[in-house]
Amino acid sequence: MPRVEPALRRADRNRSGTGELALIERIRSRADAGRRRPSGVRLGIGDDCAILAPRAGHEVVVTTDMSLEGRHFRRDWHSPQAVGHRTLARGLSDLAAMGAAPLAAFLSLALPRSAAVNGRWVDGFLDGLLELATEHKVPLAGGDTGESPCDLIFADIVLLGSVPTGKALRRSGARVNDRIFCTGALGGAAAELASLTEARTSSGRRPARKRSAGEHPHLYPEPRIRVGQALVRRGLASACIDVSDGLSTDLRHLCEASGVAAEIEAEQLPIHALAQALGPAQALDAALNGGEDYELLFTAPPEIRMPRAIAGVAVTCLGRVVTASRSRPLMRLTDAGGRRRELEARGWEHLA
Amino acid sequence: MPRVEPALRRADRNRSGTGELALIERIRSRADAGRRRPSGVRLGIGDDCAILAPRAGHEVVVTTDMSLEGRHFRRDWHSPQAVGHRTLARGLSDLAAMGAAPLAAFLSLALPRSAAVNGRWVDGFLDGLLELATEHKVPLAGGDTGESPCDLIFADIVLLGSVPTGKALRRSGARVNDRIFCTGALGGAAAELASLTEARTSSGRRPARKRSAGEHPHLYPEPRIRVGQALVRRGLASACIDVSDGLSTDLRHLCEASGVAAEIEAEQLPIHALAQALGPAQALDAALNGGEDYELLFTAPPEIRMPRAIAGVAVTCLGRVVTASRSRPLMRLTDAGGRRRELEARGWEHLA
Repeated sequence: MPRVEPALRRADRNRSGTGELALIERIRSRADAGRRRPSGVRLGIGDDCAILAPRAGHEVVVTTDMSLEGRHFRRDWHSPQAVGHRTLARGLSDLAAMGAAPLAAFLSLALPRSAAVNGRWVDGFLDGLLELATEHKVPLAGGDTGESPCDLIFADIVLLGSVPTGKALRRSGARVNDRIFCTGALGGAAAELASLTEARTSSGRRPARKRSAGEHPHLYPEPRIRVGQALVRRGLASACIDVSDGLSTDLRHLCEASGVAAEIEAEQLPIHALAQALGPAQALDAALNGGEDYELLFTAPPEIRMPRAIAGVAVTCLGRVVTASRSRPLMRLTDAGGRRRELEARGWEHLA
Repeated sequence: MPRVEPALRRADRNRSGTGELALIERIRSRADAGRRRPSGVRLGIGDDCAILAPRAGHEVVVTTDMSLEGRHFRRDWHSPQAVGHRTLARGLSDLAAMGAAPLAAFLSLALPRSAAVNGRWVDGFLDGLLELATEHKVPLAGGDTGESPCDLIFADIVLLGSVPTGKALRRSGARVNDRIFCTGALGGAAAELASLTEARTSSGRRPARKRSAGEHPHLYPEPRIRVGQALVRRGLASACIDVSDGLSTDLRHLCEASGVAAEIEAEQLPIHALAQALGPAQALDAALNGGEDYELLFTAPPEIRMPRAIAGVAVTCLGRVVTASRSRPLMRLTDAGGRRRELEARGWEHLA
């Protein structure tokens, strides 16, 4: 909390009884409510550190993801529940991409005074975050709170996961002749986001609750935790990444990490119904470049007989891995008429 | 990175070649430079998650700490090197309080466009952070980057540490008759901060580099990592907390967690030379309530023969643990004249 402004410090001391301490107590009591402490967490919120006991024979995977108001969400477009859900979903999806089981989450949250004090935004945010945490049995074991120095909300989520030693899925394992797969459907998140931006005056466009699976791919994405673990357990995948930046960009990350190239069949892409409604060209763009679908993109050796669904989620073959060569593009797309063109990475460029 | 504003997305895509990707590459190359990968980190920056291999027979401790411009630092008072140092020091001090060895650090950093693009601030920040990381052999194994939605810098540091199973120091282990100790000197950080606020037009007040141990307790605090590990290894402490919020507040945290009360001798307080220069009353206030000294406050059973220094850092007995009772204050302070009064917690109130 504030350190550099003595005048501010005094003010904050007086406020802290109803402000930050109350916020922490709210988070702690909500994080504890109705949850048995999982065996992996020896000590949760309330000391200098949390204490975790990783399973013997397992490695620990770690990811951090920021959710910044005005960049990742807007309070007038996203309900606090959706912001909480999406904040945790981003981290869980990274665990899914490694094939890890969630171990614990840590939340750093900087709130403007107004949001911190009225508490309603925080309650909705925690509703959304903790509902998804409960679904995936991930305890909120710690974090930090503070007052935002501007009128914007900053969140940073840390996820720790557990995976048998040496078995974590990486981006770098794809080999020539592997086939390329993805889970679920693509382009839905971009399509739903477009509908939010176009109709943002309608309160009906800002649902506080998800309704059924896949209905709100942007507001309530479903991280593929169970699929990732099944890929590890059943030895089905040679490489994996989650589709957070967009298929084209995430496929490029995978190709670059593996030192291979890729060929994708446009007709094979599983396009989300919300994207299909946009028309063919926009649907293809949403599926290839939209991002935030939080599906898994993975490769498997050709001899693997891939199930059509894993953990209840459809799995689709999109194409195959080929030799990287300077004389041709890293990624190529074959369209419905059989024409092949370069597939450019046009999703997000950032550290996953 | 930006998700919710399609127009912004296009602009950011175009910028990303020189902006965020360049920033990530800068961090990655700096994090790797001249550092052998420690055995605990199997996979660092560049995949969906980092992979860590905790030692057998050890538990993993985790802490997150935000450093927010305008709250924890100001660009006109703090050099980027000092901000980087302090960002990491806050997390390392939490590891020290548990007696843990550092395993890995993760940095989430949201930068205003100006700071991200010119790169000089980032380089200085990384200089400060990585110099301290090297000193304590803690690899920067991942994180997240993004563009700040306002003109302020937001950082969140995550530290993972390792401690033999069941041996982590907690706040809750203090028992009646234990003696109370602290490391180093108190009040120096508050005194140096006061000098910065009073003379902030002088560029000489904004040193980019620490000079010698203890010279800049606010700008370049020294987390007591080696002391914490020695306390665990030698079985010297019953409870421990770091002095981040101020002795009075941190002692209250320790008393509340342990269900005990405390008596402190004012004359025993090891007051930093910078605080002594403020005069007796202000010096005492800085030592009791100033905070951010990042020393360790710990208790030990009376039969323990405490060394005068541990890992080269002075250790001072401040008082003793007594029975908590509703009829007297939780904390009492005996002054130089032998008068005893209530010691109120007047430091920071927040989640450590």
